[in-house]
Amino acid sequence: MVRFADRVANVKPSTIREILHLTQQSHVISFAGGLPAPDLFPLGRLREAADQVLSNPANLQYSITEGETVLRELVSGRSPELPDPANVLIVSGSQQGLDLVGKLLINPGDSIVVEAPTYLGALRAFDVYEARYVAVPTDEAGIDPVGVEQALNDGAQMIYLNPNFSNPTGKTMTKARRRQIVELAERFDVLVYEDDPYGMLRFSGEPVPPMITMSSSHVLYAGSFSKILVPGFRLGWLSGPRGMVEKLTMIKQAADLHTSTTTQAIAAEAFTGDFLDRHVDQVRAHYLQQRDRMLLALANYFPKEADWTVPEGGMFIWVTLPEGLDSTALLGRAVDEGVAYVPGEQFFTDGSGRNTLRLAYSVASGAEIDRGIERLGSLFTRSMTSGSYA
Amino acid sequence: MVRFADRVANVKPSTIREILHLTQQSHVISFAGGLPAPDLFPLGRLREAADQVLSNPANLQYSITEGETVLRELVSGRSPELPDPANVLIVSGSQQGLDLVGKLLINPGDSIVVEAPTYLGALRAFDVYEARYVAVPTDEAGIDPVGVEQALNDGAQMIYLNPNFSNPTGKTMTKARRRQIVELAERFDVLVYEDDPYGMLRFSGEPVPPMITMSSSHVLYAGSFSKILVPGFRLGWLSGPRGMVEKLTMIKQAADLHTSTTTQAIAAEAFTGDFLDRHVDQVRAHYLQQRDRMLLALANYFPKEADWTVPEGGMFIWVTLPEGLDSTALLGRAVDEGVAYVPGEQFFTDGSGRNTLRLAYSVASGAEIDRGIERLGSLFTRSMTSGSYA
Repeated sequence: MVRFADRVANVKPSTIREILHLTQQSHVISFAGGLPAPDLFPLGRLREAADQVLSNPANLQYSITEGETVLRELVSGRSPELPDPANVLIVSGSQQGLDLVGKLLINPGDSIVVEAPTYLGALRAFDVYEARYVAVPTDEAGIDPVGVEQALNDGAQMIYLNPNFSNPTGKTMTKARRRQIVELAERFDVLVYEDDPYGMLRFSGEPVPPMITMSSSHVLYAGSFSKILVPGFRLGWLSGPRGMVEKLTMIKQAADLHTSTTTQAIAAEAFTGDFLDRHVDQVRAHYLQQRDRMLLALANYFPKEADWTVPEGGMFIWVTLPEGLDSTALLGRAVDEGVAYVPGEQFFTDGSGRNTLRLAYSVASGAEIDRGIERLGSLFTRSMTSGSYA
Repeated sequence: MVRFADRVANVKPSTIREILHLTQQSHVISFAGGLPAPDLFPLGRLREAADQVLSNPANLQYSITEGETVLRELVSGRSPELPDPANVLIVSGSQQGLDLVGKLLINPGDSIVVEAPTYLGALRAFDVYEARYVAVPTDEAGIDPVGVEQALNDGAQMIYLNPNFSNPTGKTMTKARRRQIVELAERFDVLVYEDDPYGMLRFSGEPVPPMITMSSSHVLYAGSFSKILVPGFRLGWLSGPRGMVEKLTMIKQAADLHTSTTTQAIAAEAFTGDFLDRHVDQVRAHYLQQRDRMLLALANYFPKEADWTVPEGGMFIWVTLPEGLDSTALLGRAVDEGVAYVPGEQFFTDGSGRNTLRLAYSVASGAEIDRGIERLGSLFTRSMTSGSYA
């Protein structure tokens, strides 16, 4: 048997992916996967764009690692704080951003500050570089700055945050809290990785400025076209300090030469005119409706002892069940009854959060939301009154 | 300044890429980049396929890391020795295969056996994992097995080979030599990375069986759609031992979730029927014509003291100039005279090979081949008779 490298000891499959396999039977109503609604994919527009793009062989040839100029200009044009496309690197979905930054910054054993709970995909990307994690609790304003400062005092090397409508909690960091965290990053000379795949999907409340507007030296911003266009193109971007983006470009070149010339060109062609803004308006309106439907169903059917977040955008609601209910243990029964979710424990680094769960309202129909939440509410209520509780 | 990880000390830009930047002025005849001929891209077929594919939202959604089943079946169906798609992982171009395998196998300081000269992109991919290299010379049959055995005795952890119409030399390993290397790999329990982006582009001579047909346990095969379809889709594959492919799938999931659903689906749709075979026949016929044109021009215009390979497929001819001529030093003058190539030194790990160069005959027109080779021949002849020689 060929010997694997030491870092592979940290490689594990995504548990969410295993759950998704379980729930792909068509009769299961899934609130599990964070998939964008396929009914909103702009098929006609993309077909037209593809027809244009596939008439020019340059759109099928090798290209530069930085990404197609027109797409980088689009990103930088929408970011007043980043006027220059030279600060933008197109990546193959935001997951690749995590991998490239892990490669750039993490030595084996380094500590990364994350929220408790945090995005699972970030942990899996950083695991490969043998990261350790300091999970800092989050209050209503965002990650606790006292905990962050403590972790930085103890030598942590990076702060990973998902500040808008976070995966998994749906919560948003306040402006004041963002500023505090950025100041800490500058003081301790570490990077804030601002992972923002949902930022354009705000459907209520007031926009909060991204942290990258607060520091030109210590924040790297990661955006994604997966939730505002389609995930199957695998398009995202990193933007931030020029020297860091240049290093990341070299690292990306060694990793996959460049992101698909063709999907970049189709996206850029589709975005001409005001299409992106009009399309994102539609997506936002739809997700607002979906969120409201799920909030109403939760109020109607979930036990009154349960609590949940009210996201101002994005795709997720985070539910806290009464202490003693175990969402991991109950998942099998929920799937038997035709509903799936992701147990909250998955998003913690220490096995805590067993009484929490993540619900995605993005793909189910309105009727499925009603029926699925009713069944889950019934299951959780029965579990409280039966011996499963406590 | 945020601290970078130790591995980044090894990250350098690709010199070929820098050369390509130099030569992108339109008046320069480029034999430098290994680009497939854009005139052969099957635009009509791809437009039709895209129109089909973009009518189904599933082709734009997130997908499984392993790759689209129909594309994996196509790969395994063409490989009698690999009848099961479960042994195939679709990757984002063959460069990603190098990165994933580097992550899986290379501990900092590990030695990798490579040919002298070898493919530059492999060195850049493995550099990130802090590999060292043992460069073993190649004779007419392929890499020298005595040198390989010596390196394995000294603890080398992997053998990287490009056995068909190698980049950069255009040479092909014999069957007997392949068998010797595979036996060594099995005996020392290390992996052979069989990098074969050009394998389907044989236009003369007899096919040689891939090394993966000689060992089901110690060879990983890397294929690419870049040279037989289009590079802009970023599609390649790894196939080999099931346990290794499963680990690589987990590593890929952490790196970019999956390769573009859409470009995979368009390729699979385009390949229905016998399109792939018919198309590859056209590509082969074209490259044979291009090769012959360049060989004739070399015979006509290059100094009689120069020597070059006669590839049986692929895109490259490797030229050895008389000792003392320095292709690195002469590149600037060549570009001034309107012709570009890649200095052979780039493909060695120790700065040797300064009297060699790589010529790609894939993109230049027939007339450009004549004119470009004439100019280069004249430059090299003048350099021999002037003080530049010796």
